[in-house]
Amino acid sequence: MQVDKGRTFIGRFQFKADILLSIAEVCEKENIRLATFTVIGALNGVKLGYYNQDAKKYIDCVSLDKKLEITSCTGNVSLKDSKLFVHAHITLADHEGRCFGGHLMPDSSIFAAEYSITELLGGELHRKPDPETGLSLW
Amino acid sequence: MQVDKGRTFIGRFQFKADILLSIAEVCEKENIRLATFTVIGALNGVKLGYYNQDAKKYIDCVSLDKKLEITSCTGNVSLKDSKLFVHAHITLADHEGRCFGGHLMPDSSIFAAEYSITELLGGELHRKPDPETGLSLW
Amino acid sequence: MQVDKGRTFIGRFQFKADILLSIAEVCEKENIRLATFTVIGALNGVKLGYYNQDAKKYIDCVSLDKKLEITSCTGNVSLKDSKLFVHAHITLADHEGRCFGGHLMPDSSIFAAEYSITELLGGELHRKPDPETGLSLW
Repeated sequence: MQVDKGRTFIGRFQFKADILLSIAEVCEKENIRLATFTVIGALNGVKLGYYNQDAKKYIDCVSLDKKLEITSCTGNVSLKDSKLFVHAHITLADHEGRCFGGHLMPDSSIFAAEYSITELLGGELHRKPDPETGLSLW
Repeated sequence: MQVDKGRTFIGRFQFKADILLSIAEVCEKENIRLATFTVIGALNGVKLGYYNQDAKKYIDCVSLDKKLEITSCTGNVSLKDSKLFVHAHITLADHEGRCFGGHLMPDSSIFAAEYSITELLGGELHRKPDPETGLSLW
Repeated sequence: MQVDKGRTFIGRFQFKADILLSIAEVCEKENIRLATFTVIGALNGVKLGYYNQDAKKYIDCVSLDKKLEITSCTGNVSLKDSKLFVHAHITLADHEGRCFGGHLMPDSSIFAAEYSITELLGGELHRKPDPETGLSLW
């Protein structure tokens, strides 16, 4: 789908906040319905999801209750059941440089995080159940 | 080189498609000659390349024939021998959170993948052999 | 903070240059005071920082003196003490696909690196000491 870039929002999220909720909050406040974003920073806890392609469920999850740098976090904001839905994937590193990553689940805990959110105008994307994968896709 | 952002294309690639070919297909259809992009999603197979800086060849490659989340995939589209050339680097995570990454080679197999491609206008970049590195660079 | 996207600069950095200095150089030359960027490519040496959230210092660092692919490098450019400050996080992969990552420290050595820098207009962000985290934040 062809769209145009709208406003950009850049800033930092609050200490101890959740990344997914923080992104949704900016989008709700600014009336954004379609966007892409990037985040860098550090967390002191995160839960990562892995989609089991055979079982068609996020049944494999890894909880990391330690201090981690966010080496990349990218994703998009679109609509699911007419509500904002934030889809983010994240890569993290511990103090020895080892990386961990996956689908970002709720309940991350921000130590410090800087975001850039780019609004997209001229179209909407709605997530609907996709029989082939079992996921909610555009 | 200074350029301007043109159109943005956001959507999802087809099940079992190849990432590099899928990006090129959007660009060819839309007559894009310079772009940047990001992709998130999941694969069920990928080949990663490592450039051997001494031998000046991609002689080291890792094939992963398993289900992986794409935790980041970024790159650019430019021209090589007057044809579209997609250059992508990728980070992946398995179901235990372990990360793998490298230069994305052909023949990846998409499970689900969401892309954002930003067209750049006002200039072209052509890849040519660079003696110092042995790579095709702008 | 709401801003507008300005000019985009795309190109490659010089062989053996430092990533952080190379980004700052483009921004200084082009009079950019706020920006986001992405870089992909390869290095032949890098130092990664980990912020110790308890000690409030970057006391844990990992130096990698080997050839690595940059699988992602994202960040922003803003102001600190009225000077340009480049904040970048990076993920790397070695020839066996293993990933390393963290806060990008000075003295990386580029083998080949392609960048995209997006200028942001209509506002400035200044880093100031943040008592809660000990970091310099907006």
